Amino acid sequence: MNIINIIEKKKNKQELTEEEIHFVIDQYCANKMPEYQMSALLMAIVINDMTEKETIALTKAMLDNGKILDLAIDGIVVDKHSTGGIGDKVTLILAPLVASVGLKMAKMSGRGLGYTGGTIDKLESIKGYRVNLSKKEFVDQVNKIGVAIISSNEELVPADKKMYALRDVTATVESVPLIASSVMSKKIATGSDVIVIDLKVGNDALIKKEKDAKRLANLMIKIGKSYHKKVICVLSCMEQPLGNTIGNGLEVLESIEALKGHGSKDLMEVVYTLGGILVSHAKNISFEQAKEELEKNIQNGKAYQKFEEFVHAQKGDLNHIAISDKVISVKSNQSGIINEIDAMKLGNIAKMMGAGREKEGDSINFGVGMIITKKIGDFVLEDEELLKIFVADNNIEINQLLDCFDIKKDFVNRPKMILDVIE
Amino acid sequence: MNIINIIEKKKNKQELTEEEIHFVIDQYCANKMPEYQMSALLMAIVINDMTEKETIALTKAMLDNGKILDLAIDGIVVDKHSTGGIGDKVTLILAPLVASVGLKMAKMSGRGLGYTGGTIDKLESIKGYRVNLSKKEFVDQVNKIGVAIISSNEELVPADKKMYALRDVTATVESVPLIASSVMSKKIATGSDVIVIDLKVGNDALIKKEKDAKRLANLMIKIGKSYHKKVICVLSCMEQPLGNTIGNGLEVLESIEALKGHGSKDLMEVVYTLGGILVSHAKNISFEQAKEELEKNIQNGKAYQKFEEFVHAQKGDLNHIAISDKVISVKSNQSGIINEIDAMKLGNIAKMMGAGREKEGDSINFGVGMIITKKIGDFVLEDEELLKIFVADNNIEINQLLDCFDIKKDFVNRPKMILDVIE
Repeated sequence: MNIINIIEKKKNKQELTEEEIHFVIDQYCANKMPEYQMSALLMAIVINDMTEKETIALTKAMLDNGKILDLAIDGIVVDKHSTGGIGDKVTLILAPLVASVGLKMAKMSGRGLGYTGGTIDKLESIKGYRVNLSKKEFVDQVNKIGVAIISSNEELVPADKKMYALRDVTATVESVPLIASSVMSKKIATGSDVIVIDLKVGNDALIKKEKDAKRLANLMIKIGKSYHKKVICVLSCMEQPLGNTIGNGLEVLESIEALKGHGSKDLMEVVYTLGGILVSHAKNISFEQAKEELEKNIQNGKAYQKFEEFVHAQKGDLNHIAISDKVISVKSNQSGIINEIDAMKLGNIAKMMGAGREKEGDSINFGVGMIITKKIGDFVLEDEELLKIFVADNNIEINQLLDCFDIKKDFVNRPKMILDVIE
Repeated sequence: MNIINIIEKKKNKQELTEEEIHFVIDQYCANKMPEYQMSALLMAIVINDMTEKETIALTKAMLDNGKILDLAIDGIVVDKHSTGGIGDKVTLILAPLVASVGLKMAKMSGRGLGYTGGTIDKLESIKGYRVNLSKKEFVDQVNKIGVAIISSNEELVPADKKMYALRDVTATVESVPLIASSVMSKKIATGSDVIVIDLKVGNDALIKKEKDAKRLANLMIKIGKSYHKKVICVLSCMEQPLGNTIGNGLEVLESIEALKGHGSKDLMEVVYTLGGILVSHAKNISFEQAKEELEKNIQNGKAYQKFEEFVHAQKGDLNHIAISDKVISVKSNQSGIINEIDAMKLGNIAKMMGAGREKEGDSINFGVGMIITKKIGDFVLEDEELLKIFVADNNIEINQLLDCFDIKKDFVNRPKMILDVIE
């Protein structure tokens, strides 16, 4: 077998065999296939696509070049993944919430590149929070209190890590089969039983079209099946930031508010949908019963107690969450109803303010970010606040922020949050 | 400007601006754009293509990152390029031939990867031949005797060299705009006035379809025009080896025979077409008159005299041309008419025998190769010779060679050699 011939085949829109895909990943992981050949192949895959068979083979090859974790946790271990959204703090709420009704969530999260940091960065905005636990500490904590969130420092799927870093700098991220194999290889490697995937769809998500999202969902479910994993995909709307905050410390604060029963409607709809699915599958009860259990634990304070318990177990001090004290209120220059919010642009501004990384290793300013006061469908008066920005310095272009809001005179429907559930 | 956005644009089938293309090539030449980004972009170009405007911009960017040679040669300087064929020894015949009627050919040739070496490797099979002359020696020789062929050791278009090496290992060679800009940047950089391009078309060429060849021809002519260069493209058939030999020393021998008036019909048709075009443009006479001049100089021995003169000027000893003395005659196992010859396969066998390079820096065995006794349309008897192979050892699979010949019982037309002339 020859790498150049394999690239040639994909360039010519031919299906690769399982052996060819395995050969490529083996060679790549052994550093025998240079990055420039992999990026050429990735580009050919992005443009010419892959079949279901090829995608399953790719996932398998990636897993065969890594290892599958065996955590020995008692009970049903659930996991959650998001394909990435702006203002997405769902894990921070969902993990203690489902733990509060008895599920086990042993979550390994990334830092990631993006508009804000990943879940791990967000948690690091809590003073003292230990993102690195030993495997024993991690397992013990999950067995004892049902939840732990740590940094995935152990490299379970090195092929994915290597490929993802390359895709990021070669414009080859947007590809249904590549996303499916990347997500699923990591999820299968962590060894959980039930996996719910929050598949963001919309102008401000990686996946823009519902058609592509459905294909991705079905592909991930099929891959899961081939490893005897229950995978459920929730297609959720990403046409504006989720909830009301963008930024690391600010998103922790919003999560605390949500766990205390003050979450915004859009955010809680996603949380309850994902949580309801996990709980119903884990406990073999109906979705409605599951959702009721979760709502009850938000109302009676048990969900927030679980959050405190797990953050304290990981040495986080909730009295010290990084929030910048330089706050600027941004006011609308017109009256009307919010028609559209350019969440990507808002996210990019947050990133430039210091909330996210441009490249791996960049440092993050946990305290900066924004609270979005008005969302799609809300009425705003001229001079009324649209958002509050929490900055490191005052070097910010207010007009750029105003440009992210499209305001109309007509009535605007609030976006439907849950587009579909596929299992 | 941002490299990733530019790759993204081409991935999404959008036209790149002149500025974007210039930025890419500048960054790449300055080693600020890594190979893996360039290979992703190249793959996107191969699959999604480039417009004429983009291709002209790419050629310009490559030239702007190199230099244009100023040789100060008296008279009309002509040049010739071939997109690469099996058994292609045309330069060895054409250069002294057109010099014998008064044209100037200051030829810089490559070694190249392929079934045999490049023109320079072929000339090195002549003992003592100096492939490296100083610029002064080179110019003096061309001014004095009209022809010199040297190795292009001075890097005129480093962008092309760098990109070509990358394309070779990433399955991104076959692309009309990439071929056009690669060929034309080099031809423009060498500063000749009239350039004839032998554009090989057929199953055994880089360009398989006449449609693609025509597009490539028109593109190269347009690029030439933008630099005030006269470019003429000859579309010639590559469905079997050109002439009767494959191999370095053997091709020199065949070239000598051709210059002495014993060239095979297919080979001479290409030589006279290319030569006739160059001479008619250089002397402003008709193609027929030009061809007559050339034929006359073959017959009266002046063309071969010019060959001797230039080889001697470059210290080559024509009494010592490397030819292996281990010769095996390969006989047909059936009677019939040669219907097809798999020239690529024959070429690969020649390469494996040592006539060509697998990768840059590999050494070549100048003496090995083959004489093809029977060509398409020829009748062959069972046990009659199909070809003679000149080997380094006897480790050769005769059946592999026989497989290259498809023999039929029906009458077969000899392929038409010149498919089109475009200017």
